[in-house]
Amino acid sequence: MTSRDGYQWTATTGLRQGVPSIGVISPPTNVLSTTEDWDVVVVGAGYSGLTASRDACLAGLKVLLIEARDRIGGRSWSSNIGGYPFEMGGTWLSWGQPHIWREVSRYQMRSELEPCFDFSRGVNHFELRTGSQGSSIFSHLEEDALLASALEKFVDVDGAMGRQIIPYPHDAFHNPAARQYDDMSALDRLNALAQSLTPNERAVLESFILLCSCGTLETTSFFEFLHWWALCDYSYKGCLQHLISYKFKGGQSSFAIKFFRESLRTGRLSYAFNSPVQSINDHGDRVVVKTRDGRQYSGARLISTIPLNVLSSVHFSPPLSPQRMAAANIGHVNQCVKVHAEVSCPDMRSWSGISYPFNKLAYAIGDGTTPAGNTHIVCFGGAHNHIQPEEDVEATKMAVENMSPGNMDIKRLVFHNWCKDEFAKGAWFFAPPQLLSKSLDELRCRHGNVLFANSDWAVGWRSFIDGAIEEGTRAAVTVIEELRPAPAVRSHL
Amino acid sequence: MTSRDGYQWTATTGLRQGVPSIGVISPPTNVLSTTEDWDVVVVGAGYSGLTASRDACLAGLKVLLIEARDRIGGRSWSSNIGGYPFEMGGTWLSWGQPHIWREVSRYQMRSELEPCFDFSRGVNHFELRTGSQGSSIFSHLEEDALLASALEKFVDVDGAMGRQIIPYPHDAFHNPAARQYDDMSALDRLNALAQSLTPNERAVLESFILLCSCGTLETTSFFEFLHWWALCDYSYKGCLQHLISYKFKGGQSSFAIKFFRESLRTGRLSYAFNSPVQSINDHGDRVVVKTRDGRQYSGARLISTIPLNVLSSVHFSPPLSPQRMAAANIGHVNQCVKVHAEVSCPDMRSWSGISYPFNKLAYAIGDGTTPAGNTHIVCFGGAHNHIQPEEDVEATKMAVENMSPGNMDIKRLVFHNWCKDEFAKGAWFFAPPQLLSKSLDELRCRHGNVLFANSDWAVGWRSFIDGAIEEGTRAAVTVIEELRPAPAVRSHL
Repeated sequence: MTSRDGYQWTATTGLRQGVPSIGVISPPTNVLSTTEDWDVVVVGAGYSGLTASRDACLAGLKVLLIEARDRIGGRSWSSNIGGYPFEMGGTWLSWGQPHIWREVSRYQMRSELEPCFDFSRGVNHFELRTGSQGSSIFSHLEEDALLASALEKFVDVDGAMGRQIIPYPHDAFHNPAARQYDDMSALDRLNALAQSLTPNERAVLESFILLCSCGTLETTSFFEFLHWWALCDYSYKGCLQHLISYKFKGGQSSFAIKFFRESLRTGRLSYAFNSPVQSINDHGDRVVVKTRDGRQYSGARLISTIPLNVLSSVHFSPPLSPQRMAAANIGHVNQCVKVHAEVSCPDMRSWSGISYPFNKLAYAIGDGTTPAGNTHIVCFGGAHNHIQPEEDVEATKMAVENMSPGNMDIKRLVFHNWCKDEFAKGAWFFAPPQLLSKSLDELRCRHGNVLFANSDWAVGWRSFIDGAIEEGTRAAVTVIEELRPAPAVRSHL
Repeated sequence: MTSRDGYQWTATTGLRQGVPSIGVISPPTNVLSTTEDWDVVVVGAGYSGLTASRDACLAGLKVLLIEARDRIGGRSWSSNIGGYPFEMGGTWLSWGQPHIWREVSRYQMRSELEPCFDFSRGVNHFELRTGSQGSSIFSHLEEDALLASALEKFVDVDGAMGRQIIPYPHDAFHNPAARQYDDMSALDRLNALAQSLTPNERAVLESFILLCSCGTLETTSFFEFLHWWALCDYSYKGCLQHLISYKFKGGQSSFAIKFFRESLRTGRLSYAFNSPVQSINDHGDRVVVKTRDGRQYSGARLISTIPLNVLSSVHFSPPLSPQRMAAANIGHVNQCVKVHAEVSCPDMRSWSGISYPFNKLAYAIGDGTTPAGNTHIVCFGGAHNHIQPEEDVEATKMAVENMSPGNMDIKRLVFHNWCKDEFAKGAWFFAPPQLLSKSLDELRCRHGNVLFANSDWAVGWRSFIDGAIEEGTRAAVTVIEELRPAPAVRSHL
């Protein structure tokens, strides 16, 4: 099946919208009558919504899952092109991420991981380009040392690499002193230690920070960066391991579909894809959701997994609190541009590079070998030097080539422009200063019969798939406790 | 409530059996009629059984939980003495343990952790005693450096600190080369590198290995130690963080009771404590479990969480496979002796020590401050120099005093002798050589309508509470899929 989402370019086909994915659901709905009353309506079929739906179905509740897109997965989905999975959004996972790993274990997918790094091929080095003229070449060990040195200077606000400020990564405001760092931007912190950084350290550090936030240095909360650092065991090695080392052999959609199919097997899941939501009205006894094309559905509870940056596009009645609306209007800052390039040189598999700040893409790594024997390079850019790939393919190709001049013979581009996606309005959550210290608690609150579940306001691995599952789990627990089916339920045996 | 389990000694009371715990369940049963047919009978109310029961109850199944003891928790439970929780068995947890952390998150207990180390007090050092004469004193930084150096030599079989041999800690036989290390004992490995270890390195290394296995060096699988090392991020720092740094403020029973209460709230949990099981008979359509006092209960499926070392004491019909019985007869090797000592010196809070090999207790740390302002020291011994604490309190006190002569003015001892506990026959699982490579797959298999769930044969954090929850989750998924209630279930709204 082919999703409307995503783009692909090759020399022969040119730019085409839509890529194939096993996450596309067909037929797009199994709802026979909109007058049915569900126990729970779940809005959004990303990992939060998939988890909440599954848990509620397993608990005996009747669930309606409504999704604007033609597919599951939200901001994490994979396209399968010629047998090769290109990850369009959220990709990497690790066994240090508890909620996703519990599911990997539960679905017996522990042996479905593969490493993305392979340092066994010919172009086995790190290439740093700080201007359009020339490259500096480092071994990967030197790359690690350079990044570790720069990052350790950046985070070491307490002489303990951040451990005193955030001793519990899953309770990040445990030490009230952490809050002051949410008043600071990454730029504030950089300015405070500018003299201790070498030019190369500063370049790779800024590039790494922007790889995490995909905002600008001014719009990146220093606290949230510290929080990521704490989650990653307070080390660059941990950042590598948890952020960018392991992915599913079959792509994220091979994992997401497990949740969906398990829900279906309960016989309690109704679903409606291609159904953007216009309004959510809580009448006290029932919550009524209305789609843009005028259909209405109702449930005793509604779980909204609508991302922060999209929340203000849906009409809520009663209206959302001023604090929640203020947070939604500020939004998160991640305007990631993720572009996959299939390049002919097989030895680029072992290459990594940073081209910053002059280039439209800043960070890239060899991420796999395609069935054709080409190297799959994944490239990242963001708000600081933004590009809309589908609007200017030539400029995008140029940005890829600029990562390693002469080595990027591009056979294919694959991407999803999250910034222009009306159902995402950005990629993974990353907070600007003060958003979290002012609004996190409010974003986690319920609103009458409406619960909110999204990785954007998770407590632990916020922004990650792990955080989405954390949130879906949380919402489901509440709904199940409130709508518990009568105890007389018996199995069919 | 006071459990029959555990012992307490003070000068005024002498030795007394039984300690108070919030994990004791009263009344001990809510079963009105043994002729009722359950969907699932779960044998054992440790974390595997609690998780399986909860998940099955939540899924609408009728569950009977049978437990030999008067309390929940199995090998992990806490006594609360004068407002202070003494952990009688499994204690520590971390956010790097996915299954337990998912539950900590799900029960919103993230802020219920506390660190066990506090290096702010007067006796702030590590004391190494390799004979009954004299102590060597090290700073805790020196302690860490000594242990890290010794451990790194021990595990570095591949020039990559074990990462090549076990690249995936949750898929430990992923690299077939790992199997050869299961043919080796810890002693084999020590002998191979004896010349590279200093005497102090050898002493602390042996002591640390035995702290993990509580067997002897000959009976400790080197592979299983490597597996622990991999789970702990391939570093001594990771071992500290994951194995011995964080515990629940309210004790393990404050966590276990959440699972039990959630099951009860479904209205689908029947339970019978004080009910040791004599036999389990699978009649094809029903599984009948018989208790020692002659009661019989039946279910469509049975989940046995009986530990490996106890399995051969229950009669199964049809009989268990020869391979499973062989593994049960070999058993695991952990004969841990864990003794809590309340000592008058408040400054011992920051002390740690190893007294090995001459002493009956080998490893100890300051683990807390009691309401009386005394220091709580937790001490570990095992098979290599074994003691039965309740049989010789004076020898046990002497072993505590030997850890730091002159500093152990003992006010109280608290312990659970797991080795003489007929429902445990040892503490946490630790494998002798060849047990895992020969039997792990078999131990994980079902036997008709009987499923087996125990941390003893978990895949990831085997031996840990995390592994118990992993296993309870796995068994519940299978049973729920097979006994799924009919889809017409509706909520009571």
